[in-house]
Amino acid sequence: MSYRGRAASILGDAGVGDLIRVRKDGAIYDGVLMPRTELGDEEHIVLKLKNGYNIGIGTSGAEVEVVQKGAPREIKRGATIPADPTKPQVTILGTGGTIASRVDYRTGAVHPSFTAQELLTAVPELAGLADIRTRAICNILSENMTPSHWTEIARACADELNRGAVGVVIAHGTDTMAYTATALSFMLQDLWKPVVLVGSQRSSDRPSSDASLNLVSAVRAACSDLGEVTVVMHGSSSDDRCLVHRGTKVRKMHSSRRDAFRSINTLPLGEVTERGIRPLSEYKRRKDGVEVKVDARLEERVALLKISPGMGQELLERAVDTHQGIVLEGTGLGHVPEYLLKPIARAREEEKPVVMTTQTLYGRVDMKVYSTGRELLTSGVISGGTMLPEVAYVKLMCALGRAKSYEEAKSLMETDLVGEMGPSIGTDTFLV
Amino acid sequence: MSYRGRAASILGDAGVGDLIRVRKDGAIYDGVLMPRTELGDEEHIVLKLKNGYNIGIGTSGAEVEVVQKGAPREIKRGATIPADPTKPQVTILGTGGTIASRVDYRTGAVHPSFTAQELLTAVPELAGLADIRTRAICNILSENMTPSHWTEIARACADELNRGAVGVVIAHGTDTMAYTATALSFMLQDLWKPVVLVGSQRSSDRPSSDASLNLVSAVRAACSDLGEVTVVMHGSSSDDRCLVHRGTKVRKMHSSRRDAFRSINTLPLGEVTERGIRPLSEYKRRKDGVEVKVDARLEERVALLKISPGMGQELLERAVDTHQGIVLEGTGLGHVPEYLLKPIARAREEEKPVVMTTQTLYGRVDMKVYSTGRELLTSGVISGGTMLPEVAYVKLMCALGRAKSYEEAKSLMETDLVGEMGPSIGTDTFLV
Repeated sequence: MSYRGRAASILGDAGVGDLIRVRKDGAIYDGVLMPRTELGDEEHIVLKLKNGYNIGIGTSGAEVEVVQKGAPREIKRGATIPADPTKPQVTILGTGGTIASRVDYRTGAVHPSFTAQELLTAVPELAGLADIRTRAICNILSENMTPSHWTEIARACADELNRGAVGVVIAHGTDTMAYTATALSFMLQDLWKPVVLVGSQRSSDRPSSDASLNLVSAVRAACSDLGEVTVVMHGSSSDDRCLVHRGTKVRKMHSSRRDAFRSINTLPLGEVTERGIRPLSEYKRRKDGVEVKVDARLEERVALLKISPGMGQELLERAVDTHQGIVLEGTGLGHVPEYLLKPIARAREEEKPVVMTTQTLYGRVDMKVYSTGRELLTSGVISGGTMLPEVAYVKLMCALGRAKSYEEAKSLMETDLVGEMGPSIGTDTFLV
Repeated sequence: MSYRGRAASILGDAGVGDLIRVRKDGAIYDGVLMPRTELGDEEHIVLKLKNGYNIGIGTSGAEVEVVQKGAPREIKRGATIPADPTKPQVTILGTGGTIASRVDYRTGAVHPSFTAQELLTAVPELAGLADIRTRAICNILSENMTPSHWTEIARACADELNRGAVGVVIAHGTDTMAYTATALSFMLQDLWKPVVLVGSQRSSDRPSSDASLNLVSAVRAACSDLGEVTVVMHGSSSDDRCLVHRGTKVRKMHSSRRDAFRSINTLPLGEVTERGIRPLSEYKRRKDGVEVKVDARLEERVALLKISPGMGQELLERAVDTHQGIVLEGTGLGHVPEYLLKPIARAREEEKPVVMTTQTLYGRVDMKVYSTGRELLTSGVISGGTMLPEVAYVKLMCALGRAKSYEEAKSLMETDLVGEMGPSIGTDTFLV
């Protein structure tokens, strides 16, 4: 929102998003003019400095010079965009996260704030792509996502697709987006349309936000020939292209970069272009007329435990006591210290599956190579193959929710259900 | 070892390491001729197929054709190499791991087997580089390394360096090599000479082993101007160059590739060349005449816990009950679900430090951006900055071993002791 009173008169032509220079008391401050906070007074302007920090500068005695005009990004409260039945219908489900967040320029912290509907007003080009409907599921930062949110999102996806949407976009926090994408991949049955998770690494009211390109690309992906659950995010640190990743093969690999999301052990499914998806690897293609169902059976008592040298037995013992299944993030090809074989064998006796993954993230588990791995196999440990630890964790919840016996759960874990175990690593995809 | 009897006569000119074609009963098998197992009979030859599997083929009716000659690699049992006092002295400490391992071609499993002294006979060029001494510490796969092994290795390093070695090479399994490198980085005080950890991803008796180039490069690094703890491993998947990584900034990022080790959030220190290190970033330079000391104080009761959506509170509660400090591998910039704030606050009340790192591995923790992070900071959570989770885990053991109070441990965790927190991320080092 714009500045008022004395701040406005000092700013002159300078608008939110412009790079400006402020001179005051002999000091010079260069930075991007940020939107005025709701709670701010009229005596300060807020500047985002090059180092990423925001400062408030008192207007008294300040002189402002515009260095470079930038694009303002305003989000209208309570705004709605009109339906356009001539275009394919895409539903955006709002769940919160940075993409729906606003910076509180007083404290500098980011809170989930906007509805999906309000978000749209910041990206007017969306209206030209599809008949956009929105639906609010929740408004939380994604570290607070739980399996019951996954279920709610899955049901909303099925609902929207069965009612005629050509695709669903889910605006989601990036922290746990890959976990939710995995959960939806397993929960949505007979899915032949695109379900696209999208987020942003910079809040939507920032001039540097990646929300706009990500949202536009996600809606394009939702209209495309994809037939599976995917994540669409920046493909480079420049604001120039977005990649489509399979929901079960993607991971947030950087805490802050816009291109943090990477396909692991495989290539991305494709790149989003104006005319649809440019394929980079095989994906499941859209098929119309099939009803989507939800299998929401989940056993939440699954533990994900990372192995480290010198770790005690307490946590693994406790995990066996209090959980129905355990995913280990072993070392190398899937190893643990010898003294952990005992609690692992106990889990097997109690018919609680133990699944091995690797903390290297890249590469596959292979317990046949070393003596340690062979002992683990003898103790009944199930190989996670090329599955990411986080994917094995969510999959084990689903497998335990569905299986009637240990053997059935084991067999589900060893079966490639939605592309989470493949493809075998042929192409060079290490750290690409 | 070579084949005998009927196998030898069938093989003719074909030697171990050669690519051969075997025709038998109408089938054709192409692969590398593997060494005969000690326990094998004289009626079979062992072939490593392109898919990585070994098969035994009965000699009866088999015809062998050499497709391409390869280099045989034999390791002599009980062999020693002579001392050469005209060259700088380098000590190789043997701890086990794949680099000292042998394939049992009967079962296909790999066991630690060779002594450091025997290893040398497989790499005769080492003798030309330095006056090599060897010393056995243990012979284990590195998943079985414990903090008491770290202490033993640290003492041996100090010992050898103070007795005149220009550098120490530690032959180590790759699974937990980065953890040991971190431990040595903190334990060795007043270190101004190179301590180089090295391993291999293929056992030393395999024709495709990376052990030879890694060992040669490690000895070169041990003679160089480095003055810190480093890891030297393959820098590409071709057998052509090795990189030097800082011990506290390196991670095994692939379960099987030879170039699995990567510097995270920073560039490698340099590349190993015939004339020493070609620097790629700043490193501590060698200084002679300073006595190395060992600070072996360690509090082993530290837990490393990965955060996942839907996880229960049990494991964190248990960790607070049974450990003296906890490292969390949070999501994104360093977040956890809200309901975990309670056990975290309890840890603070009990003066047990909780350190936040990120499961994205790349990027830094910044708990000031989102409301969740701010609440964590209020609850007393310590930021791990750019420290890898595994590094924060080992460092917290050391910090708790040394500090007399919570405040002192916190201050140690927030201080860059040996380059583990720096450098600030300037260059583009994401997934490089």
